[in-house]
Amino acid sequence: MAEVKTFGVMLFEGFEVLDVFGPVEAFGILGYEGKWRVITVAERAGAVISAQGPKVIADYAFDDSPPIDILMIPGGIGTRREVTNRTALEWLVANAEKAEVVASVCTGASLLAKAGLLDGRRATSNKLSFKWVVEQGAKVNWVHEARWVVDGKFWTSSGVSAGIDMALALIAHLADLKTAENIAVRMEYEWHRDSTRDPFATIHKLK
Amino acid sequence: MAEVKTFGVMLFEGFEVLDVFGPVEAFGILGYEGKWRVITVAERAGAVISAQGPKVIADYAFDDSPPIDILMIPGGIGTRREVTNRTALEWLVANAEKAEVVASVCTGASLLAKAGLLDGRRATSNKLSFKWVVEQGAKVNWVHEARWVVDGKFWTSSGVSAGIDMALALIAHLADLKTAENIAVRMEYEWHRDSTRDPFATIHKLK
Repeated sequence: MAEVKTFGVMLFEGFEVLDVFGPVEAFGILGYEGKWRVITVAERAGAVISAQGPKVIADYAFDDSPPIDILMIPGGIGTRREVTNRTALEWLVANAEKAEVVASVCTGASLLAKAGLLDGRRATSNKLSFKWVVEQGAKVNWVHEARWVVDGKFWTSSGVSAGIDMALALIAHLADLKTAENIAVRMEYEWHRDSTRDPFATIHKLK
Repeated sequence: MAEVKTFGVMLFEGFEVLDVFGPVEAFGILGYEGKWRVITVAERAGAVISAQGPKVIADYAFDDSPPIDILMIPGGIGTRREVTNRTALEWLVANAEKAEVVASVCTGASLLAKAGLLDGRRATSNKLSFKWVVEQGAKVNWVHEARWVVDGKFWTSSGVSAGIDMALALIAHLADLKTAENIAVRMEYEWHRDSTRDPFATIHKLK
């Protein structure tokens, strides 16, 4: 039997739903052939309430989570609390070390930064909360204008829907471009492929 | 106290995650001001497994669901089973009648069609499964090339991410354009606003 790789998403109270389910959609489709599975992990297993209201089940608790190949951290208002959650940050450090890729969407980068995982690395986050995220990691080389940024095994994206663009680029990297393109078509998604083009860097600056 | 309007999503085993959480993201943000809430409903309350793996909690069971103002039906492989689920179709008919707007994403249109709700109306669905969806409603005026279609209170969208574009248009209709634009910016989403432009109608035809 072929090895099954694991795309694991961290959940916490107040996570942003599209940060999670954009990339989960793409990796879920990638998994239709049986080579990938999607799992969710939180401090405690069971229902976790999102910032938008619906509750999602965490399949595993931190202390019971299986090895994760692609570890993904969403943003959302709950990050404001999670940056002070030592248990979460310690779990992140331990699992980031073992992962092949560590990715964040939106303010999820604040958790990676606070855990010290982005020190000396280039990274981005969403534009609406950019100042707050930057404050979580003084040693990070923050990139304001980027749809997503790749530095080594760390992939960080801008706000919410930027996570879909990054996830497709990550699939192109892990599998191949044709696979990513086919998934985008299946999602009927007009993939924004240029990681350096960030239409929202300016819009939010003007506010 | 101001009236709180309800955006209610139907869940079933094998629902497509982005069909649900694209629109839920947009309506969830709309709800930050306290005038809207997002709820999930399924045949039975509790965990419902998606087509991509993660499980989402249905807040209410069919026989216990509160009035829904905007009723939304996602697609996903589970629709193949749900079109034969009489309980689901009867719940749809009863709740569609009371709703202000009934919306579907992707193959969710198959359930509205099978329930007879789209008879004599214009509607669309995703392009990959278009033929199967069309077979579920012989009296529907199916529109092959459309990002989404509005006919009376029925809003039907093309595949997966088209649901986000439709949800923003629906918010512009229910609230105003500026509100929808602000939500799109907050989602860092490049809103595809032209309901008649469907880049995927041709791509799937060529296959």
